[in-house]
Amino acid sequence: MDHSPPAEVGMKLEEVDTPALLVDLDAFEHNLDLMAKTVRTAGLRLRPHAKTHKCAPIALQQMARGAVGVCCQKVSEAEALVAGGVTDVLVTNEIVDPRKIVRLAKLAHDARIGVCVDDLNIVEQLGKAARAQKVVLDIYIEVDVGGERCGVPPNERLIEYSARIAAFESLRFRGIHAYQGRAQHIRSIEDRGRAIADSTSKARMAVEILARAGITCEVVTGGGTGTYDLEMQGGIYNELQPGSYIFMDADYSRNELSKASAFQQSLFIYTQIMSVPAPQMVVVDAGLKALSVDSGMPLVHEAPGVVYERASDDHGVLLSKQARQFHLGQKLKLVPGHCDPTVNLYDWFVGIRHERVEVLWPIARGTIS
Amino acid sequence: MDHSPPAEVGMKLEEVDTPALLVDLDAFEHNLDLMAKTVRTAGLRLRPHAKTHKCAPIALQQMARGAVGVCCQKVSEAEALVAGGVTDVLVTNEIVDPRKIVRLAKLAHDARIGVCVDDLNIVEQLGKAARAQKVVLDIYIEVDVGGERCGVPPNERLIEYSARIAAFESLRFRGIHAYQGRAQHIRSIEDRGRAIADSTSKARMAVEILARAGITCEVVTGGGTGTYDLEMQGGIYNELQPGSYIFMDADYSRNELSKASAFQQSLFIYTQIMSVPAPQMVVVDAGLKALSVDSGMPLVHEAPGVVYERASDDHGVLLSKQARQFHLGQKLKLVPGHCDPTVNLYDWFVGIRHERVEVLWPIARGTIS
Repeated sequence: MDHSPPAEVGMKLEEVDTPALLVDLDAFEHNLDLMAKTVRTAGLRLRPHAKTHKCAPIALQQMARGAVGVCCQKVSEAEALVAGGVTDVLVTNEIVDPRKIVRLAKLAHDARIGVCVDDLNIVEQLGKAARAQKVVLDIYIEVDVGGERCGVPPNERLIEYSARIAAFESLRFRGIHAYQGRAQHIRSIEDRGRAIADSTSKARMAVEILARAGITCEVVTGGGTGTYDLEMQGGIYNELQPGSYIFMDADYSRNELSKASAFQQSLFIYTQIMSVPAPQMVVVDAGLKALSVDSGMPLVHEAPGVVYERASDDHGVLLSKQARQFHLGQKLKLVPGHCDPTVNLYDWFVGIRHERVEVLWPIARGTIS
Repeated sequence: MDHSPPAEVGMKLEEVDTPALLVDLDAFEHNLDLMAKTVRTAGLRLRPHAKTHKCAPIALQQMARGAVGVCCQKVSEAEALVAGGVTDVLVTNEIVDPRKIVRLAKLAHDARIGVCVDDLNIVEQLGKAARAQKVVLDIYIEVDVGGERCGVPPNERLIEYSARIAAFESLRFRGIHAYQGRAQHIRSIEDRGRAIADSTSKARMAVEILARAGITCEVVTGGGTGTYDLEMQGGIYNELQPGSYIFMDADYSRNELSKASAFQQSLFIYTQIMSVPAPQMVVVDAGLKALSVDSGMPLVHEAPGVVYERASDDHGVLLSKQARQFHLGQKLKLVPGHCDPTVNLYDWFVGIRHERVEVLWPIARGTIS
C-alpha cells in the first residue's frame, strides 16, 4: 500500500493534497508549553496520553519539555512508540491476551513499561511473562473511580492485588491508575468539579486502604484534558495524563474550561470543495473516512454561518447562510469533532507554520491491537 | 509502521488477534453469487462499489462472477485497485484537484477509467489531462436525482455538458450517474419504493432530454444495496452499483429488504473481553478506533440480551441481561453498525471458513484522497 504523505516539506499550505491532517505548529507548541509549565509549577509529573497522536516524534517533544513518559492504550501503540525512541510508556489499560502479554514483556528490554491490572490471574500471567523475559514491568492497579469501565472498586481487595504483585520479582508495584473518563466532557466547570471531587475521594480511599496495610502508592496517575486541573488540585494525584490538549477539538470547545486551560485549536482536517451543487451548499472531500463523527460533526474553521451539515463515507455537505461564499476547488479547514479517532484515520501529520509545510510526522495509525 | 496481519492462514479462529475484521467466507460468497445472479437474470450490468472493501482481490472475485468492473470514490482507491489488477474502474465522484486529475488520467494507461462530472470547467481539465496522457477517459454526467449531494439537475443544461465532453477526443461520453444515496436506508420497502420511483423518473428525464438532442446514454448507472432491486425494475438503469451487499451491517439489518435481497451478514469485528468489572458488564477491546458508530452501535453477534452500550476510543462496554454469560479473555463477534467506514479502519480482512483462517486480503485503507 502507498502511504506516502499528502505534502512535501516547504510546500505552500494550499498545495497540500486533501483530505489531510494539519497541525498548526505555533498553536501546538503553545499547548505543549502551557501544559508542561502548569504541571511543573504544580510540582506534579506529566505523562501525556499518546493515544491522541500515536506519534513518537510528538511523544519525544512532550518528554523534552519535562514529561516523565507517555501513556497509550494498546500493546501495538507501545511497540510503535518504543520503536520511535520513547523510553517510558505506561499502557493505561488491561492486557489479557497471552501473546500480547509476551509482546509487552519483550518491550521492557528497550523501555520502561507499565501496565494496568484489574484481575488477579492476569497479574500472574504478567509476572511469569516478565520473568521469562528477564525484565521488570511496572504494575498499576486500575481503580474504578466513577468511569464505569475497567478497574476494581476502591476496597480492601486492593491489598490482595498488591500482595500478588509483590510475589513476583519481575513486577514492580507502582501505584494506582484512577482515570475518570466520563467526566472529561461534562460541560460546566462546577459539575465537572463535583465529579472529580468524587473520583478524587475514591482514589484517596484506595491509597489509604493500601497505606494502612503498609503499602505505598508511589504514583497516583489519571486525569485528562477536561479535568487535569481538578485532579491537580485534589492533593492525591501526583501524575497527570492529558492527551487531547495538544490538538483540542470541537467537543472540547463545548466544555467550559478553566482560565489555565487556554489551549488553542491546533488540529485541522484540510479539505477541498469538490462540488457546488447550489448557491448555499457545497460538498467537500472529507466524510466519515476522513473524520470521526462520534462526538458530532466537525466545525468549519473561520467560516461563521457555515455548517458541516452531514457526512457520508467520502463526502461532507456544507450549508452556508450566504450564497457564493465558496468556490469549486477551494480548500477549507475543519475542526474535528473528536481528535483521537480522527487522527487514527491518517498516516501523517502535516505540520504548518506561516502557511508553509514545515514538517511531516508519521502516525502509527491502526495500532488498535 | 508495522501493518502485519492479525492472523496466519490455517490458524484457528480463536487464535486471531483482536480487534480484527473477519469475513465469513461462506456468507460472503453467497452474497457475491446472489447479487451476480439477480443482476444477470435481469439482463443488467453489475458494477459493484469497491469503496465498501477497498480490496483488489475482492473486486476480482466480483468481476470473475460477471461484474463489468467496479466503482470507487477516490483517485487513491482507483490507484490501489488498478495496481491490484482491476481493469475497469469508475470513480463515481467529482475529481477537481489538478494533480488528482493528472493521476486519474495516468491510470487510464493501465485500465478503463471512468469519472463523474458536474462542472463544465472540470470537463475541460479532464479533457486536456487525458489528451496530454494520450488516453481516453469515460465521462458520466452526475445527475442529482434526489440525493442532494453532488450532481446537476435533470434539465436542458445536460446537453451543454455532453457537447463539452464531445469536444474532446480524449473523453468518451458514456452516460449518466444517478445515485440516490439518501434512499438506501429508508426503512420500509414502500417508502423506499416511492423515493426510487422519484429518482428513477428524474434519471429517465435526463436520458430523454439528451435523447431529444440526439445524444445516447449508453450507460445509466446507480443504485445501492438498499435500492438496487428498485432501480432494476425501473426500466431506465442498465448498470447497478451495490457495495455493502457483500458484507451487510447493523444499519442495513434494520431495513425491510425484499425477498430477493437475502444477503447474509459476512463481516464481523472480532474482539476480546479485556475486563469484567461487574457480573452483567464486560469491556471489550474494540472501540471508536475499531468500528464506526456513525450509524449506531454494533450488534453483538449470537448473544441475545447483550448490548454494546457505549464506545470510547479503545473500549466497548457491553451490558448483559444475564450475569456471568462471559468470561475474561473470551472473544466475541460484533456486527458493525456501518460496514464501509469500519473497513477503512483495518489493514486486513481475515477470511474464515469452518472456524479456520483460510485467506488474508489486504485493504487499501486510508485511500481517502
